[in-house]
Amino acid sequence: MRQAGRYLKEYRAIRQKVGFLELCKDTDLAAEVSLQPLRIVGVDAVIFFSDILIPVEAMGIGVELTDKGPELPNPIRSQAGIDRLRVPDPASTVPFVGSILKKLRSELVDQVPLIGFAGAPWTLASYMIEGGGSRSFGEIKGMAFREPGTLHNLLNKIADTIGAYLLFQIESGAQVIQLFDTWAGDLTRSDYEEFALPYTQKIFEAVGTRVPRILYVNGAANILESMARSGADVLSIDWRIPIAEARRRVGGKLALQGNLDPCLLLGDRERLLRNAEDILRQAGPAGHIMNLGHGILPPTPVENARAFIDFVKGYKHQP
Amino acid sequence: MRQAGRYLKEYRAIRQKVGFLELCKDTDLAAEVSLQPLRIVGVDAVIFFSDILIPVEAMGIGVELTDKGPELPNPIRSQAGIDRLRVPDPASTVPFVGSILKKLRSELVDQVPLIGFAGAPWTLASYMIEGGGSRSFGEIKGMAFREPGTLHNLLNKIADTIGAYLLFQIESGAQVIQLFDTWAGDLTRSDYEEFALPYTQKIFEAVGTRVPRILYVNGAANILESMARSGADVLSIDWRIPIAEARRRVGGKLALQGNLDPCLLLGDRERLLRNAEDILRQAGPAGHIMNLGHGILPPTPVENARAFIDFVKGYKHQP
Repeated sequence: MRQAGRYLKEYRAIRQKVGFLELCKDTDLAAEVSLQPLRIVGVDAVIFFSDILIPVEAMGIGVELTDKGPELPNPIRSQAGIDRLRVPDPASTVPFVGSILKKLRSELVDQVPLIGFAGAPWTLASYMIEGGGSRSFGEIKGMAFREPGTLHNLLNKIADTIGAYLLFQIESGAQVIQLFDTWAGDLTRSDYEEFALPYTQKIFEAVGTRVPRILYVNGAANILESMARSGADVLSIDWRIPIAEARRRVGGKLALQGNLDPCLLLGDRERLLRNAEDILRQAGPAGHIMNLGHGILPPTPVENARAFIDFVKGYKHQP
Repeated sequence: MRQAGRYLKEYRAIRQKVGFLELCKDTDLAAEVSLQPLRIVGVDAVIFFSDILIPVEAMGIGVELTDKGPELPNPIRSQAGIDRLRVPDPASTVPFVGSILKKLRSELVDQVPLIGFAGAPWTLASYMIEGGGSRSFGEIKGMAFREPGTLHNLLNKIADTIGAYLLFQIESGAQVIQLFDTWAGDLTRSDYEEFALPYTQKIFEAVGTRVPRILYVNGAANILESMARSGADVLSIDWRIPIAEARRRVGGKLALQGNLDPCLLLGDRERLLRNAEDILRQAGPAGHIMNLGHGILPPTPVENARAFIDFVKGYKHQP
């Protein structure tokens, strides 16, 4: 959750001049906004500026990114729609992703690590089938429960796309990769294991072990043990699971990332830092990457983001 | 989740003639649609037709119910806004609620139980502060974390309103009451205990033990033990918590309600009934009310709802 966003006036200034998708595809501007959180609030890593729907568009489906969220005017509803999608070659369809990462690596000169990322198949399929955001996920689950074979075909095609896409990011300079399965927490454990986990595993297998791999799910409380079998090195969790409980359930082999409620950055300083300290104390000195439990919100005061980061950097674990 | 809705053509026929709020306030039509699920799909109880925002409107804030969900054009953002709200007397401000319940009791002549319901303070406050539905709950949580005293004042006023509102429902004939804290699952356990649980407890205390009391939260996985201390007799849970796990965590004193994923009603019959059977088997023969884990969805085929209900009624637990 180290991405630039509307909470930064420097980001808003650039967005006044270019649209969101245009910004994602402009090497210089995308690299510039990627570096904003490092320069302005002092985060300890840089994530390249992009959107999880960039490779979806490259598969051959129209994507519009509006202020209300993504819209896909021609959603996938049938096998015929899936057949029309391609598994795109990233170097020729999204070359700008490679250029942004290369530019960032050369500007960073290993000052902090560079993070690549992508959406996971269940989450990307939900946008492609619902045609945008959803509360009930009635369209994708309707397909899952009515004609699971069709959905598996789509999920497979997305997994192949994302595997190649993340490898391209690593070859272009990403030193860590994070897979966002944001909406998979809506599934029961058994549906997660049927429709989400196998594709996450397929991607992590394709990517290999050259860089650390992080898996994020929002609302992960019921599927944590399954996520631990995804092949990820780090599980990134939402704010609702106490981190000590996540540690007990996941065991000692995986690292954890998270999990401050991003809304705490809208509140008063004392409550914010008390909650941050509680997470740090629960997580202990090893195997933990401090982070938010979900993306930073547009009304976040910059000085609160900075205070949070300063506090985390200065925190010393009791011996 | 036994309420009439757009999945019934008989309901849609009535909604072509009257708006949603108008329907809630028309004794004869509201009673008629309340009975539709009993007559058409054979549910085992009747919930009176209404909306959780009816008492909110009576507090003195404008509410519009659109196809996209509720909209409150003048959201509460300050103590001054809270001061302007009243704790309404239900008999004089929402008399139609009493009339609907009385009419239903006389038509049902104890054939099946009549359920009353209301929204819980956290969930109602979220609509009042956000001005409608929300994904991030940034406005209400911003207030919670910046000026908790102000939010507590609002939550108290809502709790007083809902306590009186549910007593009015019981006096008018409701034989069970259900409190919907739909959005409280977004909170960490400690925030739930600070901003939601005390007001649920206050309401259940005001209502007393004359009728069974059910508490519903969507996404309850992290707060189940706290919910068990609410004073509810029954915890109604979403589809993501395996019901056997909920039973282990809650203990034997409370009944459980739920928890089929409503999207399974959009799928094939065999998967639907296999999942229903799994819930019944896990829950065991006592202390369980079969139900969905959230509201029934508009595209649900009526024959699937009927097949689900027939299956549950015919199910025999293994001795």
